[in-house]
Amino acid sequence: MSHINVDENLPGIRSLMAFSPETASPMGELANLLLRSNEGLTMADRELIATHVSYLNDCFYCQQSHGAIAVCYLEGDSDLVEQVKKDYAHAEISDKLKALLSIAASVQKGGKFVTSEQVDAAKKLGATDKDIHDTVLIAAAFCMFNRYVDGLASNTPTDLSSYPLRARQIAEKGYGNHIFSSKQPVHENEGV
Amino acid sequence: MSHINVDENLPGIRSLMAFSPETASPMGELANLLLRSNEGLTMADRELIATHVSYLNDCFYCQQSHGAIAVCYLEGDSDLVEQVKKDYAHAEISDKLKALLSIAASVQKGGKFVTSEQVDAAKKLGATDKDIHDTVLIAAAFCMFNRYVDGLASNTPTDLSSYPLRARQIAEKGYGNHIFSSKQPVHENEGV
Repeated sequence: MSHINVDENLPGIRSLMAFSPETASPMGELANLLLRSNEGLTMADRELIATHVSYLNDCFYCQQSHGAIAVCYLEGDSDLVEQVKKDYAHAEISDKLKALLSIAASVQKGGKFVTSEQVDAAKKLGATDKDIHDTVLIAAAFCMFNRYVDGLASNTPTDLSSYPLRARQIAEKGYGNHIFSSKQPVHENEGV
Repeated sequence: MSHINVDENLPGIRSLMAFSPETASPMGELANLLLRSNEGLTMADRELIATHVSYLNDCFYCQQSHGAIAVCYLEGDSDLVEQVKKDYAHAEISDKLKALLSIAASVQKGGKFVTSEQVDAAKKLGATDKDIHDTVLIAAAFCMFNRYVDGLASNTPTDLSSYPLRARQIAEKGYGNHIFSSKQPVHENEGV
């Protein structure tokens, strides 16, 4: 049961966004700007960063939701997503993305854990200022989203088969207030 | 020096928002919705929660900026703000606000640290579902803002006399993208 009286037919952050549609609007817009762009980082890179941070924050709902979206962008390669989530250093991804995931993991602990050495290493591997900015802000934003979802004990579907359908919808149409606050019940439309 | 090439004449989050005006817009809107409302929690309550979480996250810039705004709303009572920041349990504030600050402090550690007992205690002291929602989301949002500011090592004015002027402007006019991205230099216009 959630800590506050929300529609328990809506999963995770969607129940909270239906409770508070005013704040849902900028949060959905921020998610879209950070995750639905291929400028510099790909949409797959961005979802992998979001998934890894959600894993570090032990947010089951967000790591499943965003992991499933990453799988969509990576043509079904769920093994790669699991590997990045739990041990990105040994995953088959670029060294640049590994350097950015290292920065994201430091942000998860706290902003001051990011070192100049980490940033320099990422830059040497081709990361631009925008890549580093986006990595830090995605990681920081998921420290918010994860805490919002779990801090209010929102309803988290434990049936893993429920996430891919919703993930495909996000992968096709993006995030947005209209998605977060939609009233479709859990069994039809689960996920983010 | 910041980790990325931003205008070093702008302090803290303002330099980052000028670097990325697209994401600044929803972040400013979220700050306004969460902090510039007297519905349930007062604006002073909201800034005290933001200041305490920023203190726990060791974000010098945010705790000074939002502490100074709280002082504006509390008619200059900077001792009370310092007390809430460092030891709210012994501050002269309501038991309801103490219960909400306890929830905010748990959110700062991680969403799952919030207990049903904490929420029940706040409700018994008069907290509504909206009060609890807003407390959790303010705390979660500052886990984002704090990490954004420090994760990119943005310029932090150490001269404490520089914060009150900017705080008065926010107290009078609110947050917003037009504020975050304004180009006024540090010595004229410091703070959030």
